[in-house]
Amino acid sequence: MKPKKMLMIVCDGLSDRPVKQFDMKTPLQAARKPAMDALARNGISGTMDVIAPGVIPGSDTAHLALFGYDPYKVYTGRGPIEAAGAGIDIRRGDVAFRCNFATVDASLRVTDRRAGRIKSGTDRLANAVSGMKIEDVTVVFKEGSEHRGALVFKGPGLDYRVSDADPHAEGRVLESKALVPEAEKTARILNEFVRRSYEVLKVDEVNIERMRAGQNPANILLPRGAGSIRELESMSKRYGIDCAGVAGVTLVKGICRLVGMDVPDVKGATGGMDTDYRAKAETALSLVDKHDFVFVNVKAGDVAGHDGDFRAKVQVVENIDMMLGIILKDLHEEVVTVLTADHSTPVSVRDHSADPVPVAISGGGSMVDGVKEFDEVSTAAGALGRIRGMDLMPIMMGVADRAPKYGA
Amino acid sequence: MKPKKMLMIVCDGLSDRPVKQFDMKTPLQAARKPAMDALARNGISGTMDVIAPGVIPGSDTAHLALFGYDPYKVYTGRGPIEAAGAGIDIRRGDVAFRCNFATVDASLRVTDRRAGRIKSGTDRLANAVSGMKIEDVTVVFKEGSEHRGALVFKGPGLDYRVSDADPHAEGRVLESKALVPEAEKTARILNEFVRRSYEVLKVDEVNIERMRAGQNPANILLPRGAGSIRELESMSKRYGIDCAGVAGVTLVKGICRLVGMDVPDVKGATGGMDTDYRAKAETALSLVDKHDFVFVNVKAGDVAGHDGDFRAKVQVVENIDMMLGIILKDLHEEVVTVLTADHSTPVSVRDHSADPVPVAISGGGSMVDGVKEFDEVSTAAGALGRIRGMDLMPIMMGVADRAPKYGA
Repeated sequence: MKPKKMLMIVCDGLSDRPVKQFDMKTPLQAARKPAMDALARNGISGTMDVIAPGVIPGSDTAHLALFGYDPYKVYTGRGPIEAAGAGIDIRRGDVAFRCNFATVDASLRVTDRRAGRIKSGTDRLANAVSGMKIEDVTVVFKEGSEHRGALVFKGPGLDYRVSDADPHAEGRVLESKALVPEAEKTARILNEFVRRSYEVLKVDEVNIERMRAGQNPANILLPRGAGSIRELESMSKRYGIDCAGVAGVTLVKGICRLVGMDVPDVKGATGGMDTDYRAKAETALSLVDKHDFVFVNVKAGDVAGHDGDFRAKVQVVENIDMMLGIILKDLHEEVVTVLTADHSTPVSVRDHSADPVPVAISGGGSMVDGVKEFDEVSTAAGALGRIRGMDLMPIMMGVADRAPKYGA
Repeated sequence: MKPKKMLMIVCDGLSDRPVKQFDMKTPLQAARKPAMDALARNGISGTMDVIAPGVIPGSDTAHLALFGYDPYKVYTGRGPIEAAGAGIDIRRGDVAFRCNFATVDASLRVTDRRAGRIKSGTDRLANAVSGMKIEDVTVVFKEGSEHRGALVFKGPGLDYRVSDADPHAEGRVLESKALVPEAEKTARILNEFVRRSYEVLKVDEVNIERMRAGQNPANILLPRGAGSIRELESMSKRYGIDCAGVAGVTLVKGICRLVGMDVPDVKGATGGMDTDYRAKAETALSLVDKHDFVFVNVKAGDVAGHDGDFRAKVQVVENIDMMLGIILKDLHEEVVTVLTADHSTPVSVRDHSADPVPVAISGGGSMVDGVKEFDEVSTAAGALGRIRGMDLMPIMMGVADRAPKYGA
């Protein structure tokens, strides 16, 4: 049997809960989505606890599970994922942090955690701190979108178990503490880094310019979410497949890079509501030609959920459906295709929830069950049953005739 | 509550995938199978990952799981199962192999791995090598069907982690190597055994006769699939039940013996397409009178799947249905009956696949759900949900009022 190609489409935060003022429907149930329904109708569906029943997934832990990695074993914090997403080469032994550019006063009190949501100049500020040496540790820093950035320490004897310097609110910058004795060096270096970032940034021209213009200076870096990489075998090694990922947001790009996917830049794929669906569809199709496994993440549903905007979320569903329609029209029927979400972001909650997500598999050697619609309730009646996120890749590999045999 | 009797019917490789040229039906969906459907209609159904989602089961690991044993803990290789199936008493510390009678030339190059698919005389050849002493190890050898046989080493300090002597193709007989230092003695004895098997067999009358008739002599034994038995508590001890098994094929018989079942010989039960279904049904019924738990394996579906023959597989379904009809007609309604498969062998794949299998339980205290047909998709909508192979025995024991209680 010739192994088949695979396409996994993950709609970030797309699933939801019924909303009273919209006829007790979820956005998925309220939207017109002929492509999603066709996918469910031509395959098997189910409901999925992405991490475990009653656990609210983060997008990071969720994607790790969807790729078949046990997040409880490989995930230590968001830092390494952001760093990989920003394009920093992160290795075992390094410790990584997410950072905000922030504004502090002379007594190191944070007066604006996002430095006026600074839009430009952070590349220059990043260069000013990156490359710094503290003791025997080298600092690598890269700016992200707006006020965000990623920080990596490289050197001997580091340990990620340190508390945040970011106070997560206005107030004094925190002194990072070692949470275990082995992390004392890391905490010391982190505190020194924060102090020095202030010394370097406060005098940078970018900030002098900002102050002249009446804007808050980005005069300090506030690290949080320390983490290290554990043994993260590439998907290519683990499954014997060649993988590519399409994602707009840094976090998801970071996970794709950590598991060894090719992550091409897609023009117009922003991770926001304005993402270019047609560009994503065309990129996905062209990647399927060249790879065994292609992953596509669409972020917009999560954004609408966080905004608590039901109508916007219905619109997102219909936009994604349009994208899926373009893909399915040209996709070879032999490609095993999965449609799912990484977690629910109900508009009534305005945040992630622990509700399981709908999942459908079609194409390749897939069975066909009686499910006719792709939504939180309809798919749960399908032949896939209730599965876990970590089972999805093995199941997909099985349908694609790429599963390992155990026994004789 | 009086504990009930149990009957588990496992149709080897019976489940399948939808096939385009047969109206997107599976053989189970295309066949007339009133007895299977009645069983599903009168009980609860589900879908089952026999080992785990996305793992292709072998028949050996699958049956271990169906009997409630974790194959990842107890399975080391096929050797011990074949040996037990051939009727060799295999104990902890023994190392067992599957063997082929093969033909080699004087330089020990294999010219025919199956010795002309030798049909008779292997019992005599087996006697010529069995009982041999090599160092402090006793060799037990028993012939199987055609060119097959099973080899067991009994003695101190043996370890199964050795490579095969069988080259798995024409070419020189391989020197077995120890894969761990502890297995050096076993590799040495295995190599000596292979050499001696040639010395003994080449001069045996059976082979002289074969050569005279222009047939390839069975002048060497090629061992492969070394394994040992791990702690394999009998089912009788584990579940407090008295068990019997009906199977045609050596492999499945071997597993039945390893878990301590009575395994009577059933005349006409061949393990092939020509197996005597009526004989199997009658044996099963008479065994249910005398035992708490009866297991029946029917191999033919797997054979049709490996042959890629859809129509033959439909015929197998209808034959098994006839057998099941005979059983159900006379079976007391209080007997808890399970119908399932050990793995799928789709005709489109011509090999085992990772697709989950249908399962139905009826009789005894079983619930009744709305499932009306026994096939891969219909059962998945049932009240059993998606279960794992290792859960089947405990669930069956529960329905039979034989489950252990935990707590007060």
